Order: sequence, then structure tokens, then C-alpha cells
Amino acid sequence: MRKLPDRVWRLPRQEDDEAAEEGIGRILALSDGVFAIALTLLILDIAVPATTSNNDLAKVLLDLWPRYLAFALSFLVISRFWVIHRQAFRLIVRGDPALVWLNLLLLLFISFLPFPTAVLGEHTGSPAAAVLYAVAVCLTSAASAAYFWYASGRGNLLGPDVGRAYIRALRARALSGPVFFALTVPIAAFAPYVAAAVWFLAFPLARVSFVWFFAEEPEQPG
Amino acid sequence: MRKLPDRVWRLPRQEDDEAAEEGIGRILALSDGVFAIALTLLILDIAVPATTSNNDLAKVLLDLWPRYLAFALSFLVISRFWVIHRQAFRLIVRGDPALVWLNLLLLLFISFLPFPTAVLGEHTGSPAAAVLYAVAVCLTSAASAAYFWYASGRGNLLGPDVGRAYIRALRARALSGPVFFALTVPIAAFAPYVAAAVWFLAFPLARVSFVWFFAEEPEQPG
Amino acid sequence: MRKLPDRVWRLPRQEDDEAAEEGIGRILALSDGVFAIALTLLILDIAVPATTSNNDLAKVLLDLWPRYLAFALSFLVISRFWVIHRQAFRLIVRGDPALVWLNLLLLLFISFLPFPTAVLGEHTGSPAAAVLYAVAVCLTSAASAAYFWYASGRGNLLGPDVGRAYIRALRARALSGPVFFALTVPIAAFAPYVAAAVWFLAFPLARVSFVWFFAEEPEQPG
Amino acid sequence: MRKLPDRVWRLPRQEDDEAAEEGIGRILALSDGVFAIALTLLILDIAVPATTSNNDLAKVLLDLWPRYLAFALSFLVISRFWVIHRQAFRLIVRGDPALVWLNLLLLLFISFLPFPTAVLGEHTGSPAAAVLYAVAVCLTSAASAAYFWYASGRGNLLGPDVGRAYIRALRARALSGPVFFALTVPIAAFAPYVAAAVWFLAFPLARVSFVWFFAEEPEQPG
Repeated sequence: MRKLPDRVWRLPRQEDDEAAEEGIGRILALSDGVFAIALTLLILDIAVPATTSNNDLAKVLLDLWPRYLAFALSFLVISRFWVIHRQAFRLIVRGDPALVWLNLLLLLFISFLPFPTAVLGEHTGSPAAAVLYAVAVCLTSAASAAYFWYASGRGNLLGPDVGRAYIRALRARALSGPVFFALTVPIAAFAPYVAAAVWFLAFPLARVSFVWFFAEEPEQPG
Repeated sequence: MRKLPDRVWRLPRQEDDEAAEEGIGRILALSDGVFAIALTLLILDIAVPATTSNNDLAKVLLDLWPRYLAFALSFLVISRFWVIHRQAFRLIVRGDPALVWLNLLLLLFISFLPFPTAVLGEHTGSPAAAVLYAVAVCLTSAASAAYFWYASGRGNLLGPDVGRAYIRALRARALSGPVFFALTVPIAAFAPYVAAAVWFLAFPLARVSFVWFFAEEPEQPG
Repeated sequence: MRKLPDRVWRLPRQEDDEAAEEGIGRILALSDGVFAIALTLLILDIAVPATTSNNDLAKVLLDLWPRYLAFALSFLVISRFWVIHRQAFRLIVRGDPALVWLNLLLLLFISFLPFPTAVLGEHTGSPAAAVLYAVAVCLTSAASAAYFWYASGRGNLLGPDVGRAYIRALRARALSGPVFFALTVPIAAFAPYVAAAVWFLAFPLARVSFVWFFAEEPEQPG
Repeated sequence: MRKLPDRVWRLPRQEDDEAAEEGIGRILALSDGVFAIALTLLILDIAVPATTSNNDLAKVLLDLWPRYLAFALSFLVISRFWVIHRQAFRLIVRGDPALVWLNLLLLLFISFLPFPTAVLGEHTGSPAAAVLYAVAVCLTSAASAAYFWYASGRGNLLGPDVGRAYIRALRARALSGPVFFALTVPIAAFAPYVAAAVWFLAFPLARVSFVWFFAEEPEQPG
């Protein structure tokens, strides 16, 4: 072990500085890749049993309806996270190592979602499947909030011309995701079908609620 | 619940304005990702049964011909949607939230197509499999038409120098897709093999019909 | 059916002209996506049987060696097509509809390759598996040659400053691929292991042969 | 066989020169694609047995914990290789054929990792599974070090303004990966659970050790 120079502890900072310059491009390339694959892998959970005869096929195809619904729900959920990600990264102009790892945490949960989707499609009406789904989406929402709170707060990675009211509204909306899905965990445990209906309703409601609750200073930012 | 300022209903518009600036790049990145994965996942439906002996292998490989055809057909179908998407997004110069979600609707159907392809390859000659395929491609075509009609109509997202006759021809062609596949649904129900042949023939015919029916003002746009 | 104006047959040409401007970007994005997925899907063919006990695991893992080799071979093969694709598209500066579809034909065969790889890994030593593999790679090579011959010939899509001798060498090399793999089809039919060895040897030999046979005017192009 | 001109052996060099200009873009596109897919395919190894009843589902889901851990570990491992890749390719400003193939070697091992992950998740506590995992990650680390040593050494592909001390630190860190995972091979053989714990601990430790051991000249490069 060699003698350590005095300023050894500066090295990570310098590494951070290196990483902080621009460098958003590949974060987005990896993220778009993971989002696209997670969206497309969902279909692998839908299959007709190998023993199905041509005569039974129509009935078997119709009986798969819970899987079609689970596919559509998860496609909507992952799409929504991508739309939020795209919106957030239009404001974020710099990267740093913390942002990289918080974004990878989000991608970890995004790439996990096909599993609870498969379980939900196969075990519709089971409280365990619904709770797993609610918990998984709740954690994904929390990771989605975490990178944006970091970037818009301590990380200071947003561009200079983003309005403060707009940022505050987005931060509040980011928090509303994990809170909403956490609230559906007990619903999922006792009334799995109600929970599924609530999740589907969440999409049209999300936009209205964004306007209703969090609009303080609606004047144009910047 | 806080007091709402008067102009609260403007917030979504402002959000739209934010999103409307440029912002085509990541829509294309996600779309190309989903198209590429959907194209490549098709092969996962082709497999030799685990019990196949080396002696039987040649025969088993040849007997898989309906799956090779289903693979090639769906590759052509998805490729065609990508070619149209690429052509459309060379004219579209702005994004807005409605375009983002209409495009995600297209991607939902694109990522669904490997399932009807697998069913068609395994249950060749079954009316149920052929109807599922016709309906799935019909819905995909409708979604493909929807985003272009929006972008070239109410959304007003095309560049200023695109000729009106060219746009009208593209809009008509976009409509011809869902109409054509809707017409093959009854054929699929009663003569599945005829439907498959018609789908294959659609590709060379599409270009000729585009010229024949929809060319009103062939002079160079712009 | 409306009255057709005189110059109706010009419309496709105009469409071609539209498509011919730039427009290489998304062709590359889709191609890189398909190449990346085809490379990564190869691993899905390697799996330990579900009934394996912890005690047998070491032996089972070692017995999978033909699959590791098939995985490595196909990774090399697909990588090589990507390297050639990248080299070709550094010379190609314009796209047109024929290039788009010839490139999609290449991607069709690239996305097909995981299937013969799986068969080769599971049925090592079977002539049928080796012939399937040789034919699949031969067709892929032919598609790889086709788009480059078109782009450098009738399509006239290369940049103006590419040396003619360099193009001629690349065209000859492009042809050598399908010829080489066609020659291994009879070898595969009678001596599957020899064919596999020849395929592996092809990679170090390809570069040397490129220099030896096809170099006429080695002076710097342009 | 035609008469070979004198300077035939220059041709490969010229090909190298062609390839050396810029040309980093598609290397990154393919790499990000393979990284994204490898990250997302990991989830395919987690599944509930088809025979699970709704009553047993909760227990079955909890019993899958070794697979969740294997998923998280491999997601971290692959993420780390991506972070290092991104950092390295911010310094690399040129490509050449050797870099292309060394990078493809890294991608081969990255795309292989889902297999040892699946084995580790299914055969937790088995020395064979742990050794396979250690060897696979060790080889991946070695490939990750190889391309960076080449690019920063003989290949001379870095930009001119990168500090030598910083390069030396990165080269040392690149070596530390394969050394660390090679050291865990015997641990894996005799105490698989200890090895898994060590692998998880490696991530927080990596950053500190990078500072502690390899910082000689911490002053700002360039």
C-alpha cells in the first residue's frame, strides 16, 4: 500500500466533475432501451397451452382475458413512467453519479414489472398477486420520484430557466405516485378486483388531479 | 386542499406547450426500440420439441413450415408499420402529449403482435387463429392511422413545406390499412388459408394501389 | 374510382425522392436494435433442466459445452455482420426505399439466427442441424451482400469521395460470404463437426483472405 | 488469382484508417442495446410454477427470495459495467477495429450473464452455481479491463486532454475487477453464501477502495 497524498479525498469529487459535464445522452439511451424492452416483454406472458386443439382455440383465446387486461394495464403503467421520465429529462441538463444510480434504481424496478404482471394475469382475484403488483408499482413510483427530487433539489441538475412553480408542481406529482399506490395495497389485500379497477381509473384521473391539487402559481415559468 | 387560483385550467396547456417544443427524439428512440424487439421476439415462437431425436430432426424442421411462414408474415407486417412510421415522422416536426399517447397506443399493438403470430404458426388453418390475427393487425393499422391523422390534422404537427396533395394521399393510405384488414376478418373466419395468402399479397399490392386510387394532384409538393 | 391525372406514375418517384433525402438515422437505430437483441437472445437457449439437483449441477453445467460453443459461434457470426454493416453504412450517405427493404431483409435473417443456433446447440453432430445452420448463415450473407451491392451499384447511395478500388474490394468480400457458407453446406451434411470447425476458422481467415485475393489498387482512395 | 501489387499489405492499414475516423456512435448504440436487454432479460428467470394455486401464491412468492436477490445482484453487476463503460467512452474519442472487437468481447460476456444469474437463483447454496457466477463475472471484468487498457495504451484512442494520473487510476481500477472476482472463486467453491455476501459488499467498497489504493497524483488532470 503506497503512501497516500494529502488530497486523496478529492479524487472522487474530480471524478464527479468529469461525470457531471453533459453526459445525459447515454443515460437516455439505456433508459429508452430498458423501457422499450420491458414494454415488449410483457407479451411473453400470454400464451396458449401447447395441448390446445383447433376446436378449443376460440374459447381458450377468450378465457385469456385477464392476461390481456394485465398486459394493457402494465403497458399503461410503464408508458406513464416513460412519459414522466421524458418530461423530467427535458428539464435536467446535467448528469452526476447520484443521478446515474438513482436512474438505474428506477430501471431496476421497471425491468421487474413484467414479473408481477405475469402473476396478476395468471392469478386474477388472488390478494397475493394484487398486493405484489401494488407494492412493485409503489416502489417504482418511489424510485421515479427519487431521481426527480434529487435532480431538482440537492443535485441542482435542472436548467436555469425552469419556473419554480412548475418544478414544485412536478415534485408534488412525483410524490403522489408512491402515495397513491401505497394506499391501494390494503385494497389489493381485501378486494383485488377493486384495486385493479382503481389502477385503471388512475390514468384519466392523474391529469385532472395534477391540475386540481398542485397548481399554485400557474403563470408561465421563465 | 388549497385555494385554487383562477387560471388553474391553463396549467395543462402550459405543460402541453412545454412538451410541444421539439421532443421528437425520444419518441423515435422508444418506438425504434419496440419495433426492433417485436421483430426479434418473433423467433422465440419457433422451437424444436425437446424430445426430438437427431434422426427425426430433419423431418421436424421441415414440419415447422407454418411457423416459418408466420414468422416471415409478421416480420413483413411489423416492418411495413415501421416504414410507414419512419415516413410519417419525417414530416412530423413537433410532438405534443396527444401524439405521445397515440404513438404509445400503436406501440401497444405492435408489441402485442408476437402473440397472434405464435397462435397462427401453431394453429394454422384454424379460423380462430386467423381471426385473431386479422383483428390484431386491423387494430394496429387503425392506431397507425390515428396518430398520423391527428398529427396532420387537428394536432397541426407537420412541417410547413409538406405538400397538401401528398398529405391527403398519405391520410388515405393510412385509412386503407384498417379497412383492408377489417375486410379480411370474414375471410379469415371461413377460409383461413385464403386469408393468409391475401395478407402476403397485400405487400406488393399496397404500393400499386397507393398510386392508383389516391393520386389526385401528383405534382411535386412544396 | 376517380379520374387519374396524367402524371400519376410519377407519384412513387416523388415518394422515393422524399425518402432519399438523408434518412439514414432511423435505419441504423432499428438495425442496431435488432443486432443487439439477436446477440442477447442467444443466451435464452442455454438453461439447466428444472430437475437438476445441486449435486449434479457441476456435471450438468459442463455437459452444456456444445451450447456454449453454439452461443459463441453465433455471437461471432452476428457480430461480424454488424461490423460489416457498420463499415458499409459509413460509406452509404443516402437512403432510398429499396435500401430500406433490402436492409430489412438482412434484419429478417439476423433475427432468425437464434433458432438455428438453438438447434445446433441441442443437436450437435446432427447433419440436419448443421445444414440448417449453414443455409441460414448463407442466406444472411447473401442479404448482407445484396444491400451493399445495391447501394454501391444501381442505387448510387455512396458518398462521392469513396475510392473505386476500395468499393470493388468490399463488393468482392461481400460476395465471398454466401459463397463460403454455401460451400460448407455439403460439408455440414456429411461431417457436421468439420463444418463447425471451419466456421470458427473462418473468422481469423476472413481478414487475411480479404487482403490476398481482392487487393488490386491498394493506394489510398480519394 | 490475380497478380498482387507490391503494397498489398497496406490495405488492412487503410481499412483501419477508414475505421479509425470518428465512428464511436454505433459502438455505443449497440453496447447500450446489449446492456439494456441483458438488464431486462434477467426477470425472465423469475416465474411462479404453473401449478401454483391462489392459496399457495403468497408462500410461493416469498420462497422466490433467492431469485429476487440474484436478480438484484446481477442488475447491480451489469449496471456497474455500464457505468464504467460510459465513463471510459467519455475519454475514448476514436474507434479502431481492435476496439470494436474487444468491445464485442465485453458484450459477449454481458449477454452471457443472465445464464449464471438464473443458475444462481435456482441453485442457491450450490458451490457449482457460485463458482460459475464468479468465473463469469471475472471474465466479464477482464474483458472490461481489456478494451480500456487497449484504448488508453497501445490503441492511443483517448482524447489529448485527459490527465495521465486519472488514466493510471482508471487502469488500476479496471484491473482490480478481475482480480477481485478471481479471488472469490475459491470462496464460492467452499462457502457459496459468503461469496454472495462479498459480491454485494463489493459495490459500496469499490468506490472507497478506488480512492484509497490508486490515488497517486490527485491533482486535476489537464
